[in-house]
Amino acid sequence: MAAIQQSLSTSISTFLGQNKLSVRSQNVSMQGKIGRIVRCVATPSTTASLCNTDQLELLKIAYKTKVSRNENLAKLQAGYLFPERAHELSTLKGYSGYGAEQGENQLRASIASTYYANVGIEEDEIFISDGAKSDISRFQVLFGSNVTMAVQDPSYPAYVDSSVIMGQTGQFQKDVEKYGNIAYMRCTPENEFFPDLSTVPRTDIIFFCSPNNPTGSAASREQLTKLVQFAKDNGSILIYDSAYAMYICDDSPKSIFEIPGAKEASPDHVAIEVSSFSKYAGFTGVCLGWTAIPKALLYSDGFPVAKDFNRIVCTSFNGASNIAQAGGLACLSPDGFKGMMDVVGYYKENTTIIMETFKSCMCEETKSPTCGTLVFNSSKMGGRISPPKANFQHKVYEGKNAPYVWVHFPGRSWWEVFSEILEKTRVVTTPGSGFGPGGEGFVRVSAFGHRENVVEACRRFKELYK
Amino acid sequence: MAAIQQSLSTSISTFLGQNKLSVRSQNVSMQGKIGRIVRCVATPSTTASLCNTDQLELLKIAYKTKVSRNENLAKLQAGYLFPERAHELSTLKGYSGYGAEQGENQLRASIASTYYANVGIEEDEIFISDGAKSDISRFQVLFGSNVTMAVQDPSYPAYVDSSVIMGQTGQFQKDVEKYGNIAYMRCTPENEFFPDLSTVPRTDIIFFCSPNNPTGSAASREQLTKLVQFAKDNGSILIYDSAYAMYICDDSPKSIFEIPGAKEASPDHVAIEVSSFSKYAGFTGVCLGWTAIPKALLYSDGFPVAKDFNRIVCTSFNGASNIAQAGGLACLSPDGFKGMMDVVGYYKENTTIIMETFKSCMCEETKSPTCGTLVFNSSKMGGRISPPKANFQHKVYEGKNAPYVWVHFPGRSWWEVFSEILEKTRVVTTPGSGFGPGGEGFVRVSAFGHRENVVEACRRFKELYK
Repeated sequence: MAAIQQSLSTSISTFLGQNKLSVRSQNVSMQGKIGRIVRCVATPSTTASLCNTDQLELLKIAYKTKVSRNENLAKLQAGYLFPERAHELSTLKGYSGYGAEQGENQLRASIASTYYANVGIEEDEIFISDGAKSDISRFQVLFGSNVTMAVQDPSYPAYVDSSVIMGQTGQFQKDVEKYGNIAYMRCTPENEFFPDLSTVPRTDIIFFCSPNNPTGSAASREQLTKLVQFAKDNGSILIYDSAYAMYICDDSPKSIFEIPGAKEASPDHVAIEVSSFSKYAGFTGVCLGWTAIPKALLYSDGFPVAKDFNRIVCTSFNGASNIAQAGGLACLSPDGFKGMMDVVGYYKENTTIIMETFKSCMCEETKSPTCGTLVFNSSKMGGRISPPKANFQHKVYEGKNAPYVWVHFPGRSWWEVFSEILEKTRVVTTPGSGFGPGGEGFVRVSAFGHRENVVEACRRFKELYK
Repeated sequence: MAAIQQSLSTSISTFLGQNKLSVRSQNVSMQGKIGRIVRCVATPSTTASLCNTDQLELLKIAYKTKVSRNENLAKLQAGYLFPERAHELSTLKGYSGYGAEQGENQLRASIASTYYANVGIEEDEIFISDGAKSDISRFQVLFGSNVTMAVQDPSYPAYVDSSVIMGQTGQFQKDVEKYGNIAYMRCTPENEFFPDLSTVPRTDIIFFCSPNNPTGSAASREQLTKLVQFAKDNGSILIYDSAYAMYICDDSPKSIFEIPGAKEASPDHVAIEVSSFSKYAGFTGVCLGWTAIPKALLYSDGFPVAKDFNRIVCTSFNGASNIAQAGGLACLSPDGFKGMMDVVGYYKENTTIIMETFKSCMCEETKSPTCGTLVFNSSKMGGRISPPKANFQHKVYEGKNAPYVWVHFPGRSWWEVFSEILEKTRVVTTPGSGFGPGGEGFVRVSAFGHRENVVEACRRFKELYK
């Protein structure tokens, strides 16, 4: 019976009444519960129109960021069908009923219980995506062109590029190799790959990836506590990319929500977390990820960020492929989770092989007494700095908590190093400067690959640098 | 061997060098062809920097739209690696080498040969997506906030909503139920659901869906020829949504590229086509679609639209799920295509059942001599207008070329009709006003459903309106 109403009114997954209502037939229980029709998203344009008690209570006590709501989203018209009957679904808790763009409820619940059981993130705060990269661009659409942003330097290029496309930045400044109006937070061996926040200006949005791509560095609990406090002091929204969190094997936090203030019983919430199955389950082509947005993360006017994000998702997205979602759910079963840990372990072994290769090259070549006394660059990372040598000066930063090895060739350009490796070993590394000016002189060596290929590549590295 | 370079430098699918280059290891053939490294996308910021002969020749002869390139995309820095060696891949033809965000080459080729063999759209002009809805929002990001747009009224809400979110529109004007700064092209029974273009102002972008959702009307060749000429006269870019084209069973064009000027040997190109597997293969949750952008579709400064779209896709998208793409490829095999036609035929039969139901209700109730002399509202559509009746006045527009039946209840509000049907039959239809002010007084009845549900719903319709 419930299928009938679906049959005659489907295919349009976002239906948006002009100042009236949104109807999603999937959300309509027809067994006498006509009232359970819900808006796809209702976005009252002022906080005054937040109409239910839960939200009013929230507004009284809530910490608000200083980030202004995107005025374009406030323009959108949406209302309620049967508003008086659908009251329970007009609450924030009602999100879970909206429908498929946010993902299958079972998968959302499974992600919440697997990754966020101890930090209070609930099923209806999880949005399933087709990958972190897609959600990063959706965040830019969400926040619009008038926000400012900060980013680790170096970092995954999608943060900066999507910001440029959205019009948040100035022109590219060739002298410093930076876009105007972006705060580049330098992360180098000198600061243990964690930015000196005292030099970072206030921005609306802060992108932060840990373990970091490309440096492989995972921020410590102490560092992340500083970062959350910095965001809170500035009223910023912290977008935390945890796509590599399962590679963490020390006590570095695996979620930003482990940090007080990011998400807790108290109402001072500052963070969004974006993550992905790609690096855990070999899902790079399958395309499945998620974003967690606490309901109590608020714009400066008190409007919930998650509500606008839900609107973006409903308008611009069909939901992740249902096949991929089924796969994701399987990955979170006990056997599936063990399988993911095996995948992660496999790539971590690759990382070790690559690291040992670069270290052994050093030793064999220098025959130096410094061999074997490599310096830890960070106790947290377990990374080691190899001593510079005359004809092959490089320093290797071990991705203990990540599938990347970050190799520094001081004084040499990315082009020189990259092309030397490519031409002499036929192995492609990734030039560090592509991740921002802070990557100049580095190459990133990825551990994602079949063992035999990694071993063969390392054999060639050794031959080149023996 | 070729796998080796992939193994150490993957996982980051868009690598964008700051004023340098983009590297995609997948694109690197290592068998002595170092030169075949390509940029992900190079976007010279001025046409003067278009550096290869093909493009310069194109500029001399090309028709250009009057749509300005999004200045934010022009800010993006990207260059070439080994520019002198990668010349062949810096040509427009070189698109096909960029990588997976645009989709699997085999699927792109198969779509080109299946749907565009006679209209000159080539494999490298096809971008695989996770569905038309996602691409519609990517178009908005592509064109940015400074363009103007026109849309059929009524039409699929994603066009307008995504435009609002991007900041292209003014506020919602409650008196007319329209957003400011959007040209609503009224499509009603009076104009055979094709707008009077003499009343439509020039806009940068024109969204046009045929067969239309929700009206079910497919534009004729003559109408589309007028539309293309209108776009060309105005220097507009026409975004043509052909998501229901396979439902066409008369001689209405199935692609906008069948129309001279939309895409042909001559360089006057004005159209982009967006489509989807959802309505052909039951892929609504699988999420697979495509967009076709002719290489010779140019901004007013001569820059190719497809290049910027490629940049958007690379930055904000991981590609459609590889599993979905494999499914799409199977759908385009001879057996698969027959299967899709069977699916389409099944839903077309549903449409007929629904249409006959509404007609029979009319007859049974009125016992009127007009029964049986229903008026064709359009020879092209084969739609019939039922005569108005005293106590149940409705007019039915048969979706001969579409899976929708568009039912008009003159003088009654959407709320009154929708709630009457819902409360008395427990069947959800879709209120027409949600598709724009032109849908007021209509409901859309969808044929997407299991036969038994459609039959049961129609039984209830008959009971209500007997």
